[in-house]
Amino acid sequence: MLFHVEMTVNLPHDLDGAIADALKAKEKAMCQDLQRSGKWVNIWRIVGKYANVSLFNVESPAELHEILTNLPLFPFMQIEVKALCRHYSSIKEGEI
Amino acid sequence: MLFHVEMTVNLPHDLDGAIADALKAKEKAMCQDLQRSGKWVNIWRIVGKYANVSLFNVESPAELHEILTNLPLFPFMQIEVKALCRHYSSIKEGEI
Amino acid sequence: MLFHVEMTVNLPHDLDGAIADALKAKEKAMCQDLQRSGKWVNIWRIVGKYANVSLFNVESPAELHEILTNLPLFPFMQIEVKALCRHYSSIKEGEI
Amino acid sequence: MLFHVEMTVNLPHDLDGAIADALKAKEKAMCQDLQRSGKWVNIWRIVGKYANVSLFNVESPAELHEILTNLPLFPFMQIEVKALCRHYSSIKEGEI
Amino acid sequence: MLFHVEMTVNLPHDLDGAIADALKAKEKAMCQDLQRSGKWVNIWRIVGKYANVSLFNVESPAELHEILTNLPLFPFMQIEVKALCRHYSSIKEGEI
Amino acid sequence: MLFHVEMTVNLPHDLDGAIADALKAKEKAMCQDLQRSGKWVNIWRIVGKYANVSLFNVESPAELHEILTNLPLFPFMQIEVKALCRHYSSIKEGEI
Amino acid sequence: MLFHVEMTVNLPHDLDGAIADALKAKEKAMCQDLQRSGKWVNIWRIVGKYANVSLFNVESPAELHEILTNLPLFPFMQIEVKALCRHYSSIKEGEI
Amino acid sequence: MLFHVEMTVNLPHDLDGAIADALKAKEKAMCQDLQRSGKWVNIWRIVGKYANVSLFNVESPAELHEILTNLPLFPFMQIEVKALCRHYSSIKEGEI
Amino acid sequence: MLFHVEMTVNLPHDLDGAIADALKAKEKAMCQDLQRSGKWVNIWRIVGKYANVSLFNVESPAELHEILTNLPLFPFMQIEVKALCRHYSSIKEGEI
Amino acid sequence: MLFHVEMTVNLPHDLDGAIADALKAKEKAMCQDLQRSGKWVNIWRIVGKYANVSLFNVESPAELHEILTNLPLFPFMQIEVKALCRHYSSIKEGEI
Repeated sequence: MLFHVEMTVNLPHDLDGAIADALKAKEKAMCQDLQRSGKWVNIWRIVGKYANVSLFNVESPAELHEILTNLPLFPFMQIEVKALCRHYSSIKEGEI
Repeated sequence: MLFHVEMTVNLPHDLDGAIADALKAKEKAMCQDLQRSGKWVNIWRIVGKYANVSLFNVESPAELHEILTNLPLFPFMQIEVKALCRHYSSIKEGEI
Repeated sequence: MLFHVEMTVNLPHDLDGAIADALKAKEKAMCQDLQRSGKWVNIWRIVGKYANVSLFNVESPAELHEILTNLPLFPFMQIEVKALCRHYSSIKEGEI
Repeated sequence: MLFHVEMTVNLPHDLDGAIADALKAKEKAMCQDLQRSGKWVNIWRIVGKYANVSLFNVESPAELHEILTNLPLFPFMQIEVKALCRHYSSIKEGEI
Repeated sequence: MLFHVEMTVNLPHDLDGAIADALKAKEKAMCQDLQRSGKWVNIWRIVGKYANVSLFNVESPAELHEILTNLPLFPFMQIEVKALCRHYSSIKEGEI
Repeated sequence: MLFHVEMTVNLPHDLDGAIADALKAKEKAMCQDLQRSGKWVNIWRIVGKYANVSLFNVESPAELHEILTNLPLFPFMQIEVKALCRHYSSIKEGEI
Repeated sequence: MLFHVEMTVNLPHDLDGAIADALKAKEKAMCQDLQRSGKWVNIWRIVGKYANVSLFNVESPAELHEILTNLPLFPFMQIEVKALCRHYSSIKEGEI
Repeated sequence: MLFHVEMTVNLPHDLDGAIADALKAKEKAMCQDLQRSGKWVNIWRIVGKYANVSLFNVESPAELHEILTNLPLFPFMQIEVKALCRHYSSIKEGEI
Repeated sequence: MLFHVEMTVNLPHDLDGAIADALKAKEKAMCQDLQRSGKWVNIWRIVGKYANVSLFNVESPAELHEILTNLPLFPFMQIEVKALCRHYSSIKEGEI
Repeated sequence: MLFHVEMTVNLPHDLDGAIADALKAKEKAMCQDLQRSGKWVNIWRIVGKYANVSLFNVESPAELHEILTNLPLFPFMQIEVKALCRHYSSIKEGEI
């Protein structure tokens, strides 16, 4: 099932640079693993913001929650989740 | 270039049913043509709302405006547009 | 899987009374069928508002969308959907 | 009587980890006691957020206030309270 | 138990004058009966607005909902309800 | 003349406990003096929030400002003020 | 005592032109009478909007309510009222 | 002096088509006259919306108000005005 | 030309008291100079808030920006600016 | 292609003055380079705010994102981006 997730990152100004970089590196690695697993279907940058729009294909809402709350940057993120489903005008086959 | 577009439709209650259905049919046909052309990359329904999240791959903002404002339901839609670009964590090749 | 849905009904003042009553009766019947089927787990009235908070246990987001958009009052409703999952403090067994 | 409570937790980034964990443990214990007492009827996690939706069955608004303000995480929580009552479409017996 | 209720009235411009006056008269009569019964404890006008702030002393949220939704102007009102309880600084005796 | 005042207190997490308690004690004492003087007519706690709804009966807006800005917790409070006046449905005598 | 009032006028598109003009003329006459009486101290137009910012010097909130609700355009206005008092930096004498 | 003006047009669905077209034609003509006069410095369409962002170079706020409120579509527009001035980083000569 | 400016001051809790007092003293002095110069036409306190409503009579938006951004408390202020002009109902002579 | 960008700067109060000045100087230099390159078409100050409205003429959304996120003040800025296109009333030639 598909979920639309918008993540906005607000890192505190006084967060130690090295710590921030380490968090970002871990976040990138985890994100890419999840993309390779097919869970994290798409991730795009919102122009002008430290934020992204992502699509997740998961087995359940619980799985999505597990993924999001284990992201290294989760404590610094504002997250909006929308449940999606197939649009009757979509021409894509096999879309859920 | 990619644009993220959220469209919420508010049809007036007193709009003649036949007119509404005709508008929806034209909208669906135009949407499917644009999908086949590759302009309208994705369209998903937001659960519980007469609204969709869509991705457009267009040559310019002007082209996106042309597409959106010529949709039959445009006069009844609230539209939010976000410009997207490649996220540095994305593993997809050739993504703009 | 569980979804939290808040529905606020705004019936137009000039909607014919008989039509409104018929819509409400159909809504009530459909709601009760869905409760008996276990899909519509709970429905409570929000004090002071023509609105309710409901819990749905469905197979997929698509099923929830199907249910909500087929409610007779759907065209007159503002709906907010939240995906839920088990809270680690919950003592309930078998909760998804 | 039933109250719908949405709690969003915002722990300061610079809060000492051990203190945070201790608060969370106390919060979980108190929450589970209240569930066993029947006061805290339900608690679900909102997907993607450090937040929950809960239902309380209490004797009075004052009792609800007592419960909420004594939660260890109360100082770090944004809380929205809605009074609920029986919906005329509900098929549940003995619901208040 | 005490509830704080803010009611804002939005009568449609094209509502027939006589109907509007009749509604207001019935509303006033019902409001005064409820005041005499002690249910509707206070009602004040918010300066500059067709709105009031009221205090209700009722047996349950359900009773409050019953009162509010049976007010003649209910269909034209936006209502915000807050549950209240005794403030520890209050010097009033017997306040709930 | 009557003013409706809603006060929400946001004490910083890192405020020294003893200082916070001293502020609260002074606030309570001042509040109770003002209640005894008849200026601070009512104070109720909003369930689930570190906030109150109060009614003040003062000689002028300036006097209300004087009272509010001299409250020990004023620097930590978000305050919304509404001017009230007699509602034509009120059955109370001598109400301003 | 001084009140700051912002009034935004929303005349319905389908309001008969002659009726609208009559309302505006009556509004202007009443406004000018109140200015001559000293009640309506100032009125300025907000650039780009059918709205004004005004200052009223009245005996009580009740008097302000009386004035505002008797304005011909009141049913079509959204009104925000702020109570003002003397600023300690003001160099004006005799300001309330 | 420069003003930044954002105009969003909301034409009623049931406005007669011919009337709407006439209004738009007059609006376009007036807009182009003002551009030729140098008053209306720039006008751009906001992608996806029946709205524009414009820059005006006028002698006074009053002149801007005169221009905006005389636009044929003014009654159907929501307008936000921002006063602008020279940015200290701007490399443009003679900018006000 | 007239500008309506609303200034809300948010001093950080941990700002050194002496520094805060010095800032306030300088602010007051500058404000009173500007009043004497006729630039700062009026300043009123908003009841219950560390905020004021002010009127400025300046030669240009640039001059207003110069004044506001040089106020000692500017870094701690949230400022909303509205351009004003003469209201056609105003009876004041020589008003801009 | 044209993008409308509104940037609001919120420098932390406790940021070291020298660091802040250095950031601002680098920001100004980079801004002026981009203006000379034709990318940063216009920049105006919003009166009364540490904020600007800018126009960018870039090859793609990705380029705009690159520019904005490399600005020294980016971590301290709230940025709103709007895609623009030619307005059919514009008399400017060669406008995109």
